[in-house]
Amino acid sequence: MARVFNFGAGPAVLPEEALLEAQRELFDYKGCGMSIMEMSHRGKEYAAVHEEAVANLRRLMSLPDDYDVLFLQGGASAQFAMVPLNLLPPNGVADYVNSGAWASKAIREARVRGRVNVIADTAKDLPTRLPRPEELAFTDGAAYVHITSNETIAGTQWKSFPRPAAPLVADMSSDFLSRPFDPRAFGLIYAGAQKNLGPAGCAVVVVRKDLLDRCPADVPIFFRYKTHAEENSLYNTPPTFTIYMILLTTRWLLAQGGVNGIAERNRAKAARLYAALDGSGGFYRGTAAPEFRSDMNVTWRLPSEALEEKFLKEASARGLKGLKGHRSVGGIRASIYNAFPPAGVDALCEFMDEFRRANG
Amino acid sequence: MARVFNFGAGPAVLPEEALLEAQRELFDYKGCGMSIMEMSHRGKEYAAVHEEAVANLRRLMSLPDDYDVLFLQGGASAQFAMVPLNLLPPNGVADYVNSGAWASKAIREARVRGRVNVIADTAKDLPTRLPRPEELAFTDGAAYVHITSNETIAGTQWKSFPRPAAPLVADMSSDFLSRPFDPRAFGLIYAGAQKNLGPAGCAVVVVRKDLLDRCPADVPIFFRYKTHAEENSLYNTPPTFTIYMILLTTRWLLAQGGVNGIAERNRAKAARLYAALDGSGGFYRGTAAPEFRSDMNVTWRLPSEALEEKFLKEASARGLKGLKGHRSVGGIRASIYNAFPPAGVDALCEFMDEFRRANG
Repeated sequence: MARVFNFGAGPAVLPEEALLEAQRELFDYKGCGMSIMEMSHRGKEYAAVHEEAVANLRRLMSLPDDYDVLFLQGGASAQFAMVPLNLLPPNGVADYVNSGAWASKAIREARVRGRVNVIADTAKDLPTRLPRPEELAFTDGAAYVHITSNETIAGTQWKSFPRPAAPLVADMSSDFLSRPFDPRAFGLIYAGAQKNLGPAGCAVVVVRKDLLDRCPADVPIFFRYKTHAEENSLYNTPPTFTIYMILLTTRWLLAQGGVNGIAERNRAKAARLYAALDGSGGFYRGTAAPEFRSDMNVTWRLPSEALEEKFLKEASARGLKGLKGHRSVGGIRASIYNAFPPAGVDALCEFMDEFRRANG
Repeated sequence: MARVFNFGAGPAVLPEEALLEAQRELFDYKGCGMSIMEMSHRGKEYAAVHEEAVANLRRLMSLPDDYDVLFLQGGASAQFAMVPLNLLPPNGVADYVNSGAWASKAIREARVRGRVNVIADTAKDLPTRLPRPEELAFTDGAAYVHITSNETIAGTQWKSFPRPAAPLVADMSSDFLSRPFDPRAFGLIYAGAQKNLGPAGCAVVVVRKDLLDRCPADVPIFFRYKTHAEENSLYNTPPTFTIYMILLTTRWLLAQGGVNGIAERNRAKAARLYAALDGSGGFYRGTAAPEFRSDMNVTWRLPSEALEEKFLKEASARGLKGLKGHRSVGGIRASIYNAFPPAGVDALCEFMDEFRRANG
């Protein structure tokens, strides 16, 4: 079968160029007589991979020197726990915005550790939406403010970020490096790799260095950001192959013109798809409020669940895969991350048009 | 360059067959039109990988039904923290055997969480050794007893395991599935994948189900074994590609006759190498006491550091790679895990003989 269009929400499509290079090098990395998977994380070949991956990430974000970039395991779910462990002192309070399923998971985890103030809750709103920054009433003296920059399931995305006095912490798992942002507005950013960066098995954490010292002494050494920052993410054996794939993906991103280049392409893909929803005479109904529509995850409904099932089946037969909405909400979802090709959006829009004419 | 003999301690050599199959399938997994790395962890293709990997591990261990097999991220270092978090109650005490560098790290982490009783300490003994099971005086009412089945740096390995009243917990990172053992003797076993199982980025945890309920309520949800046991290691996105490589490696292990088959091969490889040390008239001096010699990591010294450096340089030029001892102890170390081919041991022994005759 030819390469399909993979609209899956994650683990998600990777750049073809990155996959083909990984395949070529898999058995014998640059003539070393072994796979990159078989190499010591202390050896010079892997060290070059690790360093270039960090450097590329820094360059893509224009990251100032007072921030560290870490590669940690456990994805965003581990970060839901590590953020309060490291940043929420025993008598402190953390502000959380509950914007949907992923924010809810972060809140649940933070409550195990300490006091949480949910300063806005749009998780159950329909159409799905986010609070506007001016709707947020921050807690005085909060340890930090936590947001989810893009809700993968709801298909919503912050278009401008709040600017609290406390450090802003963002789960950027599903839109990291998909658009420009000012890192100085954040105290800590984390992102699971498996949407815009590489395969599953690694989270990138970007942390302002002054926050590393906030961690209480009762936190396990392994779950302290400082432990990993001091060792350049080599305190323990890192997920070397996953970081190698992140390297290949960041190289590809730089070749696309970096974050500005990819953002332009991402906006065009999303605009084309939202135009198809809006121009369908109500046959396809977008589930997100227009001002919060995500450029990464486009979500919509059809007139009936039976039609949705038919839509998914026929789409799949044409090589348009992974369009089923999250099991918790149903409907259709097209995830169109950085590596998703514009031609796939074109193919989907053509199919949507045909399907509407045949079933509308 | 042809494939080298990779004696590295980890990430380590993988079966050639597993690497070649992964390479063939990397761009298009079984005609699906996408890479296994790009697939949803909830889809049927990945589900089959996950299930077979668990089933193969159960089969290789002849694991009884009252044990769970988990795939967790963070390697053994995360387990150093998770074991006390889950199993050491606030007023309890845990017994630890300090047998070397890895046990020391586990102890350091456990002490952050609670009271630790080091019931034996051979970490600084030379020749490197382990306590004999009968030397251990267990603490009455200990929450668990922790050992390190194989010390990668010291080159020592438990030949028979202690049988305390408390649950026995073993870090088997460097000899998991290299020899038969009775899982019923253990409450919990963990092993980072990157030595005998696959690439870095995953630890296999084998846990007796009754221990899952011991976890105190103040432990983050993500760091509770129960969270992952209840969801078959799919609570969050697992490291899918790493688990796929574990699947290929376990298939290969089964084809070698399972753990009994591979153990026979491992014993023969180690015996050949120790015979080369012992028959060298004192030129090569094994660093481990003979009764505790590891079949996985063979460690020795030469008459001088200058000769060791020369040895490593000439070995490397012949394609015998990764023989340098751990930076904390120096000397030579040959890691000969499951996937390390017997022909590599033959080549090393031949080289050692020549080198001794030229420099002895």
